[in-house]
Amino acid sequence: MNPGSLDIPSLGARAEHMIKTLASVSAESNRLVRTFLSPEHRDAADLITRWMQDAELEVSEDALGTVRGHWAGTGKKRLLIGSHIDTVVDAGMFDGPLGVVAGILAAEHFAQAGRKLGFGIDVLAFADEEGARYPVTLHSSLAAAGAFTFTSLEVADADGVTLREAITRFGKNAADIPAAAYSRDTAAAYVEVHIEQGPVLEHRNQPLGVVSSIAGQTHLNVELLGEAGHAGTVPMLLRRDALAGGAEVILLAERLARETRGEVVATVGHINIPAAASNVIAGNVALIVDIRSGSDQARLQFIERLKAETRSIAEKRHLGLLVTTTRDAAMTPCNPVLQEGFAAAVTAVGGQPMYLASGAGHDGTAMAKLCPIGMLFVRCRGGVSHNPAEYASPSDMGLAVAALIKFIEGFMP
Amino acid sequence: MNPGSLDIPSLGARAEHMIKTLASVSAESNRLVRTFLSPEHRDAADLITRWMQDAELEVSEDALGTVRGHWAGTGKKRLLIGSHIDTVVDAGMFDGPLGVVAGILAAEHFAQAGRKLGFGIDVLAFADEEGARYPVTLHSSLAAAGAFTFTSLEVADADGVTLREAITRFGKNAADIPAAAYSRDTAAAYVEVHIEQGPVLEHRNQPLGVVSSIAGQTHLNVELLGEAGHAGTVPMLLRRDALAGGAEVILLAERLARETRGEVVATVGHINIPAAASNVIAGNVALIVDIRSGSDQARLQFIERLKAETRSIAEKRHLGLLVTTTRDAAMTPCNPVLQEGFAAAVTAVGGQPMYLASGAGHDGTAMAKLCPIGMLFVRCRGGVSHNPAEYASPSDMGLAVAALIKFIEGFMP
Repeated sequence: MNPGSLDIPSLGARAEHMIKTLASVSAESNRLVRTFLSPEHRDAADLITRWMQDAELEVSEDALGTVRGHWAGTGKKRLLIGSHIDTVVDAGMFDGPLGVVAGILAAEHFAQAGRKLGFGIDVLAFADEEGARYPVTLHSSLAAAGAFTFTSLEVADADGVTLREAITRFGKNAADIPAAAYSRDTAAAYVEVHIEQGPVLEHRNQPLGVVSSIAGQTHLNVELLGEAGHAGTVPMLLRRDALAGGAEVILLAERLARETRGEVVATVGHINIPAAASNVIAGNVALIVDIRSGSDQARLQFIERLKAETRSIAEKRHLGLLVTTTRDAAMTPCNPVLQEGFAAAVTAVGGQPMYLASGAGHDGTAMAKLCPIGMLFVRCRGGVSHNPAEYASPSDMGLAVAALIKFIEGFMP
Repeated sequence: MNPGSLDIPSLGARAEHMIKTLASVSAESNRLVRTFLSPEHRDAADLITRWMQDAELEVSEDALGTVRGHWAGTGKKRLLIGSHIDTVVDAGMFDGPLGVVAGILAAEHFAQAGRKLGFGIDVLAFADEEGARYPVTLHSSLAAAGAFTFTSLEVADADGVTLREAITRFGKNAADIPAAAYSRDTAAAYVEVHIEQGPVLEHRNQPLGVVSSIAGQTHLNVELLGEAGHAGTVPMLLRRDALAGGAEVILLAERLARETRGEVVATVGHINIPAAASNVIAGNVALIVDIRSGSDQARLQFIERLKAETRSIAEKRHLGLLVTTTRDAAMTPCNPVLQEGFAAAVTAVGGQPMYLASGAGHDGTAMAKLCPIGMLFVRCRGGVSHNPAEYASPSDMGLAVAALIKFIEGFMP
């Protein structure tokens, strides 16, 4: 194979085939569900392992099940290329897997060309990016970054299984987590190819985009405590209906986010009503407000307003209120040199480099604690993600793999 | 025992003891959950059977597990006395069991006095009043009333178990349901003792009240269809967030009910978000609006307004909308002669008869399809029901049993 002339249609077709194959690994037959440390994680990791072996990479697996495919270079430094293979519930197939598959195809390109680079390549398949199983997330990449906190081992999933227990059931040992960390001397940079999950590239008619930063993100858990009662007998004015209070908070978050005119997005996608029944006034509810912004200042201002107005809602309705922050990540800038490298790579495959911020969180947020990070976005249809309708075309994916290869050719650790 | 002088404290203490014993029969150790055709229904029915046998009643059980304790009279007619032994999730212990226990104690009074009446007494322990298991309810009393519709057999619970299958697992045969029906020649009347589940009697300082009617009730199932999407990447103005739409419907129902100034109450106590996750914009939600009123006209007007304004919400938010009526019961009047009978009985035990409407639905709604119905309400603390804090005092319950005995003494079929 001649690395100078890349067969982009073939790379795209292979990427699509691999992504579709991976999409068949699901906990449910009629929708895609693949959560951290589940049996499906195991099956997906085995599939990734075989693909990495076929690509002549040296494969290992760390204590959190992250599969690592290594191709040695002449120097000690390594370029880390990764993404995640876990999914949300009823997911699309491209969110995560594209980045892992792109890394394997790019590493294979150099491995099969027999051309040693001045640095090694490690392709990483993380599996805890979506947070579909545990209330906190990114454990896989935090471990690789040496930033895993051991208190996390005691968090439990919806079935009460702690992370520590899940690691054991997965056949690993939590005591080995420190060994998963890269040293700062080794990790030259972390880069990731990912679908955009938004509409900007499609709108600008560009297949690829260079990510300038990853949005900061806060999860506020809002619990409202009212009084359960009979739906037929308690007069409207005597009610302390926690769900009606929760409805106000949902609409408040939406209104305040709209008022920022694009600077902040806020979402309530989950609400828990213990002992919910159609004929019972809800005694208490818990909901999570997901808040994101490319500006940490805008995000923090939003949180203060949301908290103040939520307090007013609770007071007006005579509801108890408990607001806790269950996730809080500052905005993560992408490294300017890596951004330039991706811009040159986009140009080399015939695109026009454009820069955009990521509204979604990524493993790069964790890896930035270790080394400089960079990201390349790939256009996806309608900006749709976290949805079975998620779609990236083989030709765009082929361009992305080619651009990653060009990026690696130009990379200097 | 001298039926002329009733030992009211003893009747109250026995009622409380029986109700507490029944409350220990629960699917969960830390809260009361006893649903239709469950193993706990079986255990509760066995307990009721023993109590009825101890009271010298002739016990049988119909195809839906309704326990019937019969005490024969000199004539063919029977006075039916019943209530239900199923509960909501995390229930109080008095809602339902009080009426069954009061029936047993009253029948025992006549059975042990060896005094034949001109009519028989059947004490009925129904078990499908709360609707905690199936989306439609009152199957037990509909069967007794001869109004069971066989299409109901195909409804499924949250685990997909149909009513037909649940009947089989309970050891019964759906083909025997028609035999559960009373003939119109036999059923002289149906009466029920029940806690008020509201604050009126407490407010008026009366232990007992005569029910004038049972409120009409409608359940509207409102499904909103938006578009699932990533919480970090879809701009606020491009979202079609089904949960935000649902929040507007919850607050709309509350506002419209408040505007009726007590004529209508409306509650949303349950909302279903398939594939809910904190980082996913809700693609669709389903919620149930429970609407009740003593006036059918007010209820129907409310429903029209709610539907019209819900359509506006859906249009404004570009959401698909499907509204279906899953329950619809007209207001049920209590029979004037039976009301008079209960008023005389309340007076006979030293109370002042007062009349009030029931905001809650009851088995009487179904039994009214068969025969005249009457109800006696018992004061409960704070009007609290469908809540573990539900409470009726032994002295009030003793008065209720005594009043029921007085009612029976004065009853003429």
